[in-house]
Amino acid sequence: MTTTTPSAFASLPTPPYYAVIFSSLRTSAGPDEYAHMAERMVVLAQHQPGYLGAESTRGADGFGITVSYWTSLEAIAHWRANAEHRVAQETGKAQWYEHYELRVALVEKAYGKKI
Amino acid sequence: MTTTTPSAFASLPTPPYYAVIFSSLRTSAGPDEYAHMAERMVVLAQHQPGYLGAESTRGADGFGITVSYWTSLEAIAHWRANAEHRVAQETGKAQWYEHYELRVALVEKAYGKKI
Repeated sequence: MTTTTPSAFASLPTPPYYAVIFSSLRTSAGPDEYAHMAERMVVLAQHQPGYLGAESTRGADGFGITVSYWTSLEAIAHWRANAEHRVAQETGKAQWYEHYELRVALVEKAYGKKI
Repeated sequence: MTTTTPSAFASLPTPPYYAVIFSSLRTSAGPDEYAHMAERMVVLAQHQPGYLGAESTRGADGFGITVSYWTSLEAIAHWRANAEHRVAQETGKAQWYEHYELRVALVEKAYGKKI
């Protein structure tokens, strides 16, 4: 058995709330710059109104999924419009992501298992 | 630039449709059995009514996210009740997952970037 890493999981309220599902394939461009930006965006998101939590992982093939959770569509729109986040989005489109998909969804039910 | 891997991304219709967001932390138990089961569940899911696609990744730390997409809550309930899938679910709870979270969400909007 591995050691539990609770910090990888978002601790969320009872639904409903919103999810932003972001799947992406990284280019090989700027690994250090990308890591720095990604870390900065996590901190910045945590300070946005309506932010509930996030879960994120990326495999060795460069394909990753990040799901961030928000109280409302308004909170998501506000985060999307954040000036520093917009710079990261534009750099991502231009340099860091070969391909990405972004889906906004209303979480209706949630289940879990902790041991 | 890395080579595009379109197969990692689900090709989905215009929303609305449903997402099942499954995040999990693997134990160290049964890597071969787990890989075999995971591969089998992908094939089995693809043959279920209402299945639209899935995206999945897991990092070196054992934390993974799989998002599967479905036409309706009924399709999700049907898949959850599938006999072979239920065996996999029970083995997962007992052996393979240290911790997991499962969230069911209605996708309202989708955006993407392909180059």
